[in-house]
Amino acid sequence: MSAAPFRHVAVIGLGLLGGSVLRAVQQYLPDSVTTGYDADAGVRARAREIALAGTVADSASEAVTGADLVVLCVPVGAMGAAAKAMASGLSPQTLVTDVGSSKASVMAQLGEALPGHPVIPSHPVAGTEQSGPDAGFATLFRNRWCIVTPPEDADAAQVAALNAFWEALGARVETMDPEHHDRVLAVTSHLPHLIAYTIVGTASDLEEVTQSEVIKYSAGGFRDFTRIAASDPTMWRDVFLSNREAVLEMLQRFTEDLTELQKAIRKRDGDALFDHFARTRAIRRGIIEMGQDDARPDFGRSDHNGSG
Amino acid sequence: MSAAPFRHVAVIGLGLLGGSVLRAVQQYLPDSVTTGYDADAGVRARAREIALAGTVADSASEAVTGADLVVLCVPVGAMGAAAKAMASGLSPQTLVTDVGSSKASVMAQLGEALPGHPVIPSHPVAGTEQSGPDAGFATLFRNRWCIVTPPEDADAAQVAALNAFWEALGARVETMDPEHHDRVLAVTSHLPHLIAYTIVGTASDLEEVTQSEVIKYSAGGFRDFTRIAASDPTMWRDVFLSNREAVLEMLQRFTEDLTELQKAIRKRDGDALFDHFARTRAIRRGIIEMGQDDARPDFGRSDHNGSG
Ligand SMILES: NC(=O)c1ccc[n+]([C@@H]2O[C@H](COP(=O)([O-])OP(=O)(O)OC[C@H]3O[C@@H](n4cnc5c(N)ncnc54)[C@H](OP(=O)(O)O)[C@@H]3O)[C@@H](O)[C@H]2O)c1
Ligand SMILES: NC(=O)c1ccc[n+]([C@@H]2O[C@H](COP(=O)([O-])OP(=O)(O)OC[C@H]3O[C@@H](n4cnc5c(N)ncnc54)[C@H](OP(=O)(O)O)[C@@H]3O)[C@@H](O)[C@H]2O)c1
Repeated sequence: MSAAPFRHVAVIGLGLLGGSVLRAVQQYLPDSVTTGYDADAGVRARAREIALAGTVADSASEAVTGADLVVLCVPVGAMGAAAKAMASGLSPQTLVTDVGSSKASVMAQLGEALPGHPVIPSHPVAGTEQSGPDAGFATLFRNRWCIVTPPEDADAAQVAALNAFWEALGARVETMDPEHHDRVLAVTSHLPHLIAYTIVGTASDLEEVTQSEVIKYSAGGFRDFTRIAASDPTMWRDVFLSNREAVLEMLQRFTEDLTELQKAIRKRDGDALFDHFARTRAIRRGIIEMGQDDARPDFGRSDHNGSG
Repeated sequence: MSAAPFRHVAVIGLGLLGGSVLRAVQQYLPDSVTTGYDADAGVRARAREIALAGTVADSASEAVTGADLVVLCVPVGAMGAAAKAMASGLSPQTLVTDVGSSKASVMAQLGEALPGHPVIPSHPVAGTEQSGPDAGFATLFRNRWCIVTPPEDADAAQVAALNAFWEALGARVETMDPEHHDRVLAVTSHLPHLIAYTIVGTASDLEEVTQSEVIKYSAGGFRDFTRIAASDPTMWRDVFLSNREAVLEMLQRFTEDLTELQKAIRKRDGDALFDHFARTRAIRRGIIEMGQDDARPDFGRSDHNGSG
């Protein structure tokens, strides 16, 4: 598709995701008009300063007036409120999507807030540990997957236009039902975050090992977890509350597997440990082959370039 | 110290660590003579091909003959055997050190294998997920900490020379007793690896989420864990067997903390989740300020440079 799929794109929530959508539209769909809104006046002021959108409006309904596509980029728990706040500005043909990290809950919230209105949720599986209006950048979605979860009665042309939008921003699109999305992301994103938050907390609370020792010797593996555990607390609180069942289920399995390894250590069962550790390499290879991570040792961290 | 602290450095075990020690000596202490040995004939052949050492010997005792410093770079469980195999080549004044990831066990093994011989264990807290003779590089130790655990009766001049050696390779040196080392590393390295191995195993075993989905959507956080879980299985089996008590103790605390977060999710206690997630950011900041990680978003992965 060569023409921009949507002439006017409005973004609600001007943090990492909202900012990246706007930067990407500016870069890859330069003919599109952009408007934006954020509930936080400070964020709106900063967004104006850095020209995150063509216009940063002072209300959500104003921001979406005349828009062909609205992208909700607020924490998952705020989706319903954000949708209600903008509803009076929507025209009946405006397509509403979002970028929320869980989908069944968002679908329910938006269905309730915008009854009868066309809504097709999305989730670009792309992010960093940063947040706020300065965190966004145009290439965030490049080479990443965007999962779209159209309701059964979604208009096929609107689904196609939304897919084309994400593809224009550099993403590859996959379609799923929201429940399956939530199970897949529970294991590939939500559980990893929960575990990272846990271990960083555990390490902070030790008495016999000081915080300064934890920091100094973090290059032994711990530092990887601290990146994830520096992610936005509001966003992640909302993810765990909204994807509760799938997260608890995956956590249960993780705990069972951890108990097995714990037993193997306790029983000094070196063979069981070796067998387990030997079968986890293949997944890393798959991720690198699919272009889903940096193939260089240590993610290509600057540590090893000799200048560190 | 401007003169090389040791004229002849011998390395036993020519993998990531052994190769990096040799590359670093070649680069930063070019006047030193280097020799090497590995139990694996294929590794020795490859080490000769890429000139990993001045001489790659065909026996451990030959490799250490005439050496001023021997650095044992074999898996922790093989330290005793490697020391015995070289013992006949050692002269009484040769200092023996190692790079093993646990220290109380190594100290015991080396004490038994080399009774009365000067041994000062070390652990450079530096590594990547790669292994083998091609994995090493000269800058691995730069800006990283090396923990030295001298026995109480260690010769002060030998301790100073060993510290100077690691500093010449770019590391900063810290002294600790082996038991404290093992507790610190249990939390900053061993537990993170155990957890990463576990979750990658859990994700591989799911039936309702395919391996290909896990790989595709790994950029949501999971991919970070797969890097660590691609580390060498022999090395890590040995670490968990040799640092069993400290690892089990840290694992117990982690499990308790995870149970707390699980309860908060089950009870929909958003405030407890938020409070926990809000207090883990400080450690990341500390790590970045101490120069112990790449400050760029996502470790500076190549994903985001627009070429991905
Ligand atoms: N971060 C990631 O890696 C990632 C990846 C994929 C998807 N997502 C999803 O993207 C969404 C946004 O995350 P983010 O990382 O961009 O967060 P962020 O940087 O914190 O930005 C969210 C912005 O939304 C604003 N906001 C909150 N409630 C609002 C409302 N009712 N109306 C308008 N604005 C409101 C917030 O303002 P305040 O200053 O008042 O908080 C904040 O400026 C979340 O649903 C998240 O699940 C995130
Ligand atoms: N990787 C890290 O991130 C890291 C960081 C800090 C410290 N360490 C420590 O460094 C040590 C080496 O780890 P690495 O990552 O360098 O492993 P590696 O790349 O697998 O290299 C170890 C080498 O030692 C050889 N070897 C095994 N037993 C031997 C023996 N008895 N005599 C001589 N050679 C023997 C192995 O040969 P085979 O081919 O027969 O196995 C292999 O070539 C371990 O004690 C580890 O705990 C590792």
